[in-house]
Amino acid sequence: MEKPYVVGIDIGGTNTKFGIVDASGKIISQGEIKTQTHEKVEMYIDELHGELKKLIDAVGGIDKIRGIGIGAPNANYNKGTIENAANLRWKGIIYLSKMIADKFGIPQEKVAVTNDANAAAIGEKVYGAARKMNDFIMITLGTGVGSGIVINGEVVYGHDGFAGELGHITSVRENGRKCGCGRSGCLETYASASGVARTAREILETSDKDSLLRKLPIADITSKDVYEAAIQGDEVAKEIFEFTGKILGEALADFATFSSPEAFILFGGLTKSGDLILNPIVENMEKNLIPHWRGKIKVLFSELAESDVAVLGASALVAEM
Amino acid sequence: MEKPYVVGIDIGGTNTKFGIVDASGKIISQGEIKTQTHEKVEMYIDELHGELKKLIDAVGGIDKIRGIGIGAPNANYNKGTIENAANLRWKGIIYLSKMIADKFGIPQEKVAVTNDANAAAIGEKVYGAARKMNDFIMITLGTGVGSGIVINGEVVYGHDGFAGELGHITSVRENGRKCGCGRSGCLETYASASGVARTAREILETSDKDSLLRKLPIADITSKDVYEAAIQGDEVAKEIFEFTGKILGEALADFATFSSPEAFILFGGLTKSGDLILNPIVENMEKNLIPHWRGKIKVLFSELAESDVAVLGASALVAEM
Repeated sequence: MEKPYVVGIDIGGTNTKFGIVDASGKIISQGEIKTQTHEKVEMYIDELHGELKKLIDAVGGIDKIRGIGIGAPNANYNKGTIENAANLRWKGIIYLSKMIADKFGIPQEKVAVTNDANAAAIGEKVYGAARKMNDFIMITLGTGVGSGIVINGEVVYGHDGFAGELGHITSVRENGRKCGCGRSGCLETYASASGVARTAREILETSDKDSLLRKLPIADITSKDVYEAAIQGDEVAKEIFEFTGKILGEALADFATFSSPEAFILFGGLTKSGDLILNPIVENMEKNLIPHWRGKIKVLFSELAESDVAVLGASALVAEM
Repeated sequence: MEKPYVVGIDIGGTNTKFGIVDASGKIISQGEIKTQTHEKVEMYIDELHGELKKLIDAVGGIDKIRGIGIGAPNANYNKGTIENAANLRWKGIIYLSKMIADKFGIPQEKVAVTNDANAAAIGEKVYGAARKMNDFIMITLGTGVGSGIVINGEVVYGHDGFAGELGHITSVRENGRKCGCGRSGCLETYASASGVARTAREILETSDKDSLLRKLPIADITSKDVYEAAIQGDEVAKEIFEFTGKILGEALADFATFSSPEAFILFGGLTKSGDLILNPIVENMEKNLIPHWRGKIKVLFSELAESDVAVLGASALVAEM
């Protein structure tokens, strides 16, 4: 009989979330530890194993577990590693799949690692808005911009395992904003939550337009503040969403030339702004698409609860094994 | 015993070339007809069949033919059609695979159609510079700019069969040059042979720099003229290649974020300019790549003879069946 459960682990810069997921995509139990308590990754894995073992034992032990899927920063699916992750304290190359497999006593091919945007794409394909799609592009609009590209039903990992970095196309604006990656003009400097806040500061500093946002200390303005001002009808806030949606819509039109997807699926904090961000995205994508694609490519929001996506997406990696 | 030969057909706006290819990738016989003699596509297929039959009979008849691969404008691999090709006289949707299969008396699944850039990519994978590669991007630099994207060893066709239109990303320049596709700023308006000629005219018209190119009627300047001036040390001609290579190199860096290819393979008229175009492409790609990819992605010229590529690429489609 097929083993009934899979484990999903999401390794974030602050917290590591994990859970046991059943065949219907329901998280039946979950837990959390701090990611960066331990100087050595071996100690971290010891703690993670200790906590997860309780959940695994409660469902009947490791024999009931079909596999372990892990979402992690700078993860390399091909090699099962985390490599030089800027926001983790363990430097160099961490052979995560092998370490986890050894610790839990399961074969290494039953452990898969990928980055969080790819995990989200797989989660959406197995449980969410892309259930019947073989060709779509997941765009995560959080602190940064991530992407998971699915072609012919499979996530694109590329030659070195690091494909799908659409947040770092630099053609968005010539001589554009400085990015954390060391270059300028990356999509993520505009179309992320922090990009929206940056746009707000630029507009407020370079114009004297009246705005509710002027009541806030300029350095502290967040994308949430911009959203709240926009739903009160604030013109500057609406202009910020129009600008962000224009840049993202133009980028989506270019992405379409690559893989001609059935849909773009958007996920993350910015999507909470709903039509305020969706309408300018769609309008500008349509305007910039090759004519024969106009009206044919969907732009959808994720169907998964934000609190579940990390664990669910990681666990869905096992479905792809 | 495996059937020993495949047929490759390349349908161009002016000529249709065809040939019989053996298992080693050698074109053992070939021929050519005019593409647009006949008002009805059925008559065209009659003529093509008549000519090809002579070659097929000479190698022992249709039983020796493993399949037929066709490169054609606006071809849809998924459906086996040509759809609304601007430079062909047959409008609407042409069910080419089916018509060819019926005419030659072979099963429809033994006939495949794709566009010329995808055919070139497959040709390069089966016979050329990409023989050992599973992840690469073919860029054809001819009158226009085409692309064929290979991921996990397979050409990307996308949801509707028309993926791989990288010549029509519009982010190359804001408010850029008008393109034949109806939009502005497409890569192909800069990085094609006609784009190079356009750049030459722009520079000559907006500056008074001394140049060998001024001896030519400005409207008649071709990319070949620019090449010939450049190898004589003409500064304006060199500036034109630098500018073209910069735009193309920046675009390649963005394309890499998508599929993290092992290599870009360049094909077509512009590659005859050798290092004059290759050096600025590589330099600008490297400068714009995400740091961890720098020095790792090859930029290569096609290894196939330009005269053979059309037939060879089309025939290689059969190897993918």
